[in-house]
Amino acid sequence: MTQNVYDDAAFFAAYSQLPRSVHGLDAAPEWPALRALLPNMRGLRVLDLGCGYGWFCRWARESGAAHVLGVDVSERMLARARELTEDAAIAYRHVDLERLTLPADSFDLVYSSLALHYIGDLDRLLSGVHRWLVTEAPLVFSAEHPIFTAPSLAEWSIDGCGRRTWPLDRYLEEGPRSRDWLMNGVVKHHRTLGTYVNLLLRLGFALTHLEEWGPTDTQIAQQPELAAERQRPMFVLLAARK
Amino acid sequence: MTQNVYDDAAFFAAYSQLPRSVHGLDAAPEWPALRALLPNMRGLRVLDLGCGYGWFCRWARESGAAHVLGVDVSERMLARARELTEDAAIAYRHVDLERLTLPADSFDLVYSSLALHYIGDLDRLLSGVHRWLVTEAPLVFSAEHPIFTAPSLAEWSIDGCGRRTWPLDRYLEEGPRSRDWLMNGVVKHHRTLGTYVNLLLRLGFALTHLEEWGPTDTQIAQQPELAAERQRPMFVLLAARK
Repeated sequence: MTQNVYDDAAFFAAYSQLPRSVHGLDAAPEWPALRALLPNMRGLRVLDLGCGYGWFCRWARESGAAHVLGVDVSERMLARARELTEDAAIAYRHVDLERLTLPADSFDLVYSSLALHYIGDLDRLLSGVHRWLVTEAPLVFSAEHPIFTAPSLAEWSIDGCGRRTWPLDRYLEEGPRSRDWLMNGVVKHHRTLGTYVNLLLRLGFALTHLEEWGPTDTQIAQQPELAAERQRPMFVLLAARK
Repeated sequence: MTQNVYDDAAFFAAYSQLPRSVHGLDAAPEWPALRALLPNMRGLRVLDLGCGYGWFCRWARESGAAHVLGVDVSERMLARARELTEDAAIAYRHVDLERLTLPADSFDLVYSSLALHYIGDLDRLLSGVHRWLVTEAPLVFSAEHPIFTAPSLAEWSIDGCGRRTWPLDRYLEEGPRSRDWLMNGVVKHHRTLGTYVNLLLRLGFALTHLEEWGPTDTQIAQQPELAAERQRPMFVLLAARK
């Protein structure tokens, strides 16, 4: 079962202050790159795994999607999503993604933003995604990059020459990592890029894009603190087709 | 044009002492994983990019390949390859891989071991590979992993808790890296996994496997110094199909 930190009151209070919580997709620097991987949304039946406040669900509808289902393990997040949403074609469902079941061939797009690194049994979930998608339909998702999730101590280090470096270790040791992020003991599941890719291929997906996200020059000019993200990627964006 | 360190006398003298130079494929710990990606060799026309001493070319023929062409930029390596080879179905050609041209649809397998990170214009070379392969035929290669090629200082660091860490930086800054490896100023071309994968996809290949190589438990039991390779991957193995 997936850990549900988002229903911890202190975590939720801190999370709700993050720019991407307050301002939605446009406050997420990786969103333009992720959006570029999406198909034309017109008429699509869309599933959003880990929909949070429903920012993507609403964007999908504004972009022409016929129907959007957002699922999330957090009741608090979904309560807020429902407050923010006035659209009968968007449905939210409270469920542990590791236990989600849906009818076969019922979606034209499955999307997920920064949720899959919380999932222990990704094999089961992505098998489901393959079944729920119609033939040729895309899966597009982001997750924390394994370079970001791997280390014993996931904090920048300054080397003898004053350079900011990322102290990578345990990259090939897959499994849970306990992190202090907004609260103590947030559990993320570290897996290599090879594991993500080979799982998709084994399930019958064709890979169509793999991006180790970094900020553009324009983004760094607007937010100079983003420059550090070029030292090591924080996110991976993947696209595949059934 | 590719830098040709292998024809530097001092580099060549040092390189020729490495276990994989003396003992061939079985002294390369990643070879079993790379071999597992290869098809049945019987009757295949095989191209080996960066064939060195020709260990793989000879193995391919012993495994049933019909004809093997090994190409390499180093005349010294090829001279030694020819000394070690007595087989009219193996040909060696001295050429800069960045300038290689071959007839379309003339190979059933293209293989390359630890050579592509020396290539600046990989786009041109892999476009060629796509043309030279027959439809559905595989490309299987290893290269230095971008985690290994990225850093300003590619050396283990010991953190405050006595842990061995890899000081990653510059991961998203692609381009040449000058390294001191057996000689000063060896130039390797750093590119991300995303760049390798998206280049293959853009050229029309279907990706079939991506492996961030690490040693098995058995290998570590036999060679305890290999354990460090689990902290960060040194090699990436990729397989794709035209």
